[in-house]
Amino acid sequence: MGIAVIYGSSRKNGNSEQLAKRLVEGFEVDHIHLSDYNIAPIADYRHSEQGPYPDDDYHHVIERVLAQDVLVFTTPIYWYGASGQTKTFIDRWSQSLRENKTEFLAKFAAKTAYVIGIGDDEPHLKGLPLVQQFQYIFGYTGTNFAGYILGKGNKPGDILQDAVSLAAVEQIREKWRSVADQDGFNL
Amino acid sequence: MGIAVIYGSSRKNGNSEQLAKRLVEGFEVDHIHLSDYNIAPIADYRHSEQGPYPDDDYHHVIERVLAQDVLVFTTPIYWYGASGQTKTFIDRWSQSLRENKTEFLAKFAAKTAYVIGIGDDEPHLKGLPLVQQFQYIFGYTGTNFAGYILGKGNKPGDILQDAVSLAAVEQIREKWRSVADQDGFNL
Amino acid sequence: MGIAVIYGSSRKNGNSEQLAKRLVEGFEVDHIHLSDYNIAPIADYRHSEQGPYPDDDYHHVIERVLAQDVLVFTTPIYWYGASGQTKTFIDRWSQSLRENKTEFLAKFAAKTAYVIGIGDDEPHLKGLPLVQQFQYIFGYTGTNFAGYILGKGNKPGDILQDAVSLAAVEQIREKWRSVADQDGFNL
Amino acid sequence: MGIAVIYGSSRKNGNSEQLAKRLVEGFEVDHIHLSDYNIAPIADYRHSEQGPYPDDDYHHVIERVLAQDVLVFTTPIYWYGASGQTKTFIDRWSQSLRENKTEFLAKFAAKTAYVIGIGDDEPHLKGLPLVQQFQYIFGYTGTNFAGYILGKGNKPGDILQDAVSLAAVEQIREKWRSVADQDGFNL
Repeated sequence: MGIAVIYGSSRKNGNSEQLAKRLVEGFEVDHIHLSDYNIAPIADYRHSEQGPYPDDDYHHVIERVLAQDVLVFTTPIYWYGASGQTKTFIDRWSQSLRENKTEFLAKFAAKTAYVIGIGDDEPHLKGLPLVQQFQYIFGYTGTNFAGYILGKGNKPGDILQDAVSLAAVEQIREKWRSVADQDGFNL
Repeated sequence: MGIAVIYGSSRKNGNSEQLAKRLVEGFEVDHIHLSDYNIAPIADYRHSEQGPYPDDDYHHVIERVLAQDVLVFTTPIYWYGASGQTKTFIDRWSQSLRENKTEFLAKFAAKTAYVIGIGDDEPHLKGLPLVQQFQYIFGYTGTNFAGYILGKGNKPGDILQDAVSLAAVEQIREKWRSVADQDGFNL
Repeated sequence: MGIAVIYGSSRKNGNSEQLAKRLVEGFEVDHIHLSDYNIAPIADYRHSEQGPYPDDDYHHVIERVLAQDVLVFTTPIYWYGASGQTKTFIDRWSQSLRENKTEFLAKFAAKTAYVIGIGDDEPHLKGLPLVQQFQYIFGYTGTNFAGYILGKGNKPGDILQDAVSLAAVEQIREKWRSVADQDGFNL
Repeated sequence: MGIAVIYGSSRKNGNSEQLAKRLVEGFEVDHIHLSDYNIAPIADYRHSEQGPYPDDDYHHVIERVLAQDVLVFTTPIYWYGASGQTKTFIDRWSQSLRENKTEFLAKFAAKTAYVIGIGDDEPHLKGLPLVQQFQYIFGYTGTNFAGYILGKGNKPGDILQDAVSLAAVEQIREKWRSVADQDGFNL
């Protein structure tokens, strides 16, 4: 049991990824880059006979996400929101709700989630709708939304110069270590 | 010149589409269903040598969008945001910014935009981050964000029973008619 | 039993008041103009020995509010929020929480609330933080937040020309009539 | 020239005040506790003949605020917003707009502002409308909104144990020192 980091960027080693890696360093982690997988948009069968869902990597990815206790959604802020890859992945959760709502929600309700969003246009202000959207998402799934980091980054590596983001990272790591100590929890 | 409706739903004839069609009925309209096209996630070359962009339908779609004066982004509210299809399309605008930023922004700055978001979990409250995200998007592109309609819909057709949404539709239509009359504008 | 309208404006007969009066016309209503009363800012004794609370009109006003089933908070949008009078009144609820938390919350949890906010600087966008603040307030008190109207008004009377606000008013009135019919409820 | 801290709490030495004092320690500061002054709610003469404004401490306080370059609005989060004292003070800016709009806005447009909000009910999420409201306020006045700190505090002193808030404080201080060095600016 451990941490799943869900990377929503379309490129590797950007600021959001770098910050997330600093966050989880030394813990048991499954790194999931959505851009490595083929995940199609949701097919919406809420009001029609159910047809087939896309035959793609969604089940593989969601199973890996559901296998962990702590989720870190890590995305560059594209156009003031999570990346399209991230959103398309989350939209597919509606498929899981149709396939097994009770189990899906029960699993999510036992998890703790964090969000990392890095952008370059006033992310501390213009990233707030992104945070609020995740707040509603986790409210629906019953997931404990334990924290978020909005940071400013232009060139890769910028974010590792941001003292406030690093302090936030350290504060979360401290909490995880404390939980791990108390519970014999193998984080 | 006229109106482009950008439909973000993965199915046809849902509540958001029905409301949008009521809105634009009788005007000159290009109906663009994103689900009819193949639009891949953005490749992010902001901090690396520029590689190729996906060879897909993006240019076709964005050209049709840019050809109109009024844009109506029409999306079901999936997980408290615009659909993944809608977000993936907007993410690709970053490609246009790299290809011809000045012209792209000049065109968007001359447009007027509306947003229709229909959901079933308290859309008037939990749809607000979606509105705020579009507010920042149109702030960046310099587009006049002239209005939005958040409506509640469960079964298809529900939205056409919602008096407030219909009044909002009628108010916008009245404004369009008035503009068309004044300017000999062929809406 | 009936409706309490809590007017937060510092002047009479403004747009927010006019819309609220249209909303409640014909129902049993207690009209409460906060500017008619002397309500001082909260004294904050959360972390000190409790001293006296201001000897003013707070208890009179809150009793009248608590006596009704439906609350309509009606405020001009001053500086992108509820008026200072409205906020100062709400801050005083902390006094009630100290005096009798269980009873106070039980009463609020049985109520249904609406918010009317009228402003002149893009109220449909820049009034959203006001709505979200009330969302959290009613979340805390357990009150059913059944709707809000954000409207644009410059000169008094403008709001009564706004078809969408009037449709929202009519939709709420329709709902109240239906409840009243079903429950023999004397609205 | 220096910093004005505008304290909105109804009590002294709470968490928001303690964090603000840590922020400005060693700089030239005017500490303004709104609870020390008599500031009445705004009288709204936008649509009527102008009557008298309250004869109270408003002019004294706003002059002190306008005399500084950097403003730190420091408030406990009461009911998910700035305190009533803070809001009532800001509402009175409408009086200044009537008395001398051009000069008032010119002064505010030359300032840099920060917001500190400390609360105990999920301030990092439920304090976001407060931040967004200040974002619109400073957008209107043309003030540079350079940063905010949302922190969690229960008992006084809690906030000084919060590593992220302290890192944010230190980051702002570093910036101020750098500006002071470059400009011979007497912060």
